[in-house]
Amino acid sequence: MIAFVPEDRRGRRVLFTPGPLTTTRTVRDALRDDIGSWDNDCIALVSRIRTSLVDIAGGRDDLTCTPFQGSGSYAVEAVLGSAVPRDGGLLILVNGAYGQRMVYIAEALGLPHRVMRDPEYRPHDPAALDKTLAEDPEITHVACVHCETTTGLLNPIRELGLVVDKHRRRYIIDTISSFGAYPIAEADHITGTANKCIEGVPGFAFVISRRAAVEAAAGNARSLSLDLHGQWAHLEKTGQFRFTPPTHVLLAFEQALVEFQAEGGVEARAARYRDNHRVLNDGMTRLGFSPFIAPEHQSHIITAYRFPTDEFDFRSFYDRLRGQGFIIYPGKVTDADTFRIGNIGSIDRREIEALLAAIERVM
Amino acid sequence: MIAFVPEDRRGRRVLFTPGPLTTTRTVRDALRDDIGSWDNDCIALVSRIRTSLVDIAGGRDDLTCTPFQGSGSYAVEAVLGSAVPRDGGLLILVNGAYGQRMVYIAEALGLPHRVMRDPEYRPHDPAALDKTLAEDPEITHVACVHCETTTGLLNPIRELGLVVDKHRRRYIIDTISSFGAYPIAEADHITGTANKCIEGVPGFAFVISRRAAVEAAAGNARSLSLDLHGQWAHLEKTGQFRFTPPTHVLLAFEQALVEFQAEGGVEARAARYRDNHRVLNDGMTRLGFSPFIAPEHQSHIITAYRFPTDEFDFRSFYDRLRGQGFIIYPGKVTDADTFRIGNIGSIDRREIEALLAAIERVM
Repeated sequence: MIAFVPEDRRGRRVLFTPGPLTTTRTVRDALRDDIGSWDNDCIALVSRIRTSLVDIAGGRDDLTCTPFQGSGSYAVEAVLGSAVPRDGGLLILVNGAYGQRMVYIAEALGLPHRVMRDPEYRPHDPAALDKTLAEDPEITHVACVHCETTTGLLNPIRELGLVVDKHRRRYIIDTISSFGAYPIAEADHITGTANKCIEGVPGFAFVISRRAAVEAAAGNARSLSLDLHGQWAHLEKTGQFRFTPPTHVLLAFEQALVEFQAEGGVEARAARYRDNHRVLNDGMTRLGFSPFIAPEHQSHIITAYRFPTDEFDFRSFYDRLRGQGFIIYPGKVTDADTFRIGNIGSIDRREIEALLAAIERVM
Repeated sequence: MIAFVPEDRRGRRVLFTPGPLTTTRTVRDALRDDIGSWDNDCIALVSRIRTSLVDIAGGRDDLTCTPFQGSGSYAVEAVLGSAVPRDGGLLILVNGAYGQRMVYIAEALGLPHRVMRDPEYRPHDPAALDKTLAEDPEITHVACVHCETTTGLLNPIRELGLVVDKHRRRYIIDTISSFGAYPIAEADHITGTANKCIEGVPGFAFVISRRAAVEAAAGNARSLSLDLHGQWAHLEKTGQFRFTPPTHVLLAFEQALVEFQAEGGVEARAARYRDNHRVLNDGMTRLGFSPFIAPEHQSHIITAYRFPTDEFDFRSFYDRLRGQGFIIYPGKVTDADTFRIGNIGSIDRREIEALLAAIERVM
């Protein structure tokens, strides 16, 4: 049996990863123009991207988008370091490596913070958050990850947000891996990146904020490069990034946005990913793999599978799949041996079925 | 007269900017592959890039390269925030906007620092540095810009470095705009970026450090994302960036490195830029423009020209050149009206002559 390889990426490997992921040929072709960063070519491009991202986040008039050069974690650091004032208090909800990364950021920046920790298999509990916020008036901001890429677990960001609102605290959600693939709850700041569910290529990330929240961040930042208010104010005034933007990556991202809307926006993309995930999970279960996360908490973005036996050699499994043109992803769960398969990117059930056939061959 | 447009960028504009700049078709074509960031495709790529950059910096065994997602200023912030310990003292030499940017970084990070300021037309004086270091034992680190993109002025980094060495302080040079186009003086840390004289596309920057200097930076950083030792130690251990790298930009950069070596390395690139600059400056002088910087201090990277008359309308000048396919750059000098023309990137005297002909037409 020959693995399915679409025309436009013959000879290339298909990525089943959390991103960088498989993109369309048209997105990759859009990378190939040199434009000047001070030129209107770039100013208009950045403006269109900012507007489109706000539209995807719900399009409310009070929202504003601030892109940052770098990876998603840079945007998370920019938000935490800019939103939390020196006399503030940040509560970080942790049930995976990306929640933990926010703790590392808070430590590096010297942000006053505390941590509410859950096991990696369990979503955060709004009732527990309610209790914590009632008990600790020093908490001014709450930060939470939507889809934990560690496991593929989804946290109940809407229900958690209602609790944060009830206590009149500020709310920050890391929606890096879910933006574009799930409707996003209202928050003061959410983060996203170019190379996830919008299906662009890596090189910049973004924050979508309530205008009042980004204005309130003035003077708070512990960094020049990762100053949310500084970057936003400069964009508002000049239409430009403060420092050199990744122009080629921005061009590709605009094309990815066009294709995102052409597909039908969040709803259509979610439907394709859901189908990808169902086909993947049915096949993996049939092949003897079991997911780490219970079905009711599992996202349609990425899935962590337990090693099927104690003798399972992931490196060899990975290499043999790679030899057939498929790139999967290692595990990151603390207390269990897992590996991960992403089902986002420019792939559909045909690629998933080809991957499953390859897994069956290499077992 | 028809402007010269090479085959491979017909219909595109030629950039006479400090970067992003005009790249070759082959560099842009190299952008078009999706590779996994955890895959050996990426690990081997990052390794080749780090090794090549150390080679260009002189190739000594004690040098090591740390790339960072983001723009050049991110790398500068990473170095300053990581190299200077909490009980250290940073002396920043300023004669342009990029020296001043280091001051803004030091302020944002709360680094103990002082500033030695010269006018924007004057290179820093090693004797003045000698005096300052003799008088102030609290200075542990000295930071200086090699080529100030504000004006195109070159600072005497080698002579300044001898003074820093004599006083046994640590030396940091911002070589972002000169790396690849000038031999680089020895220092503890130098910074560079993908989209300058190596002629890649923007999306990452890099630091080349003495191994002992990066090891000494452990625990100093005021950031998670911009932690020089953190990023370096992870690269040494795993071959990977800590957070998602801009894979497509890295692929293009490797192609740019191949073309850099094929051209003949620093010496050949410097010769082409020198020729570009000579043709440009002769032509501009003939057309009535005078450079802001005296010839003996002027780099062959970028040149600031004074407005020829008080009535000169830069915006209209820019737009008319743009209409003919040429992108130039606005000025940044504090006390004088200037605009800038870069002569780096995949251009030679043919493009410079075409630009000069266009300038003559639009005057």
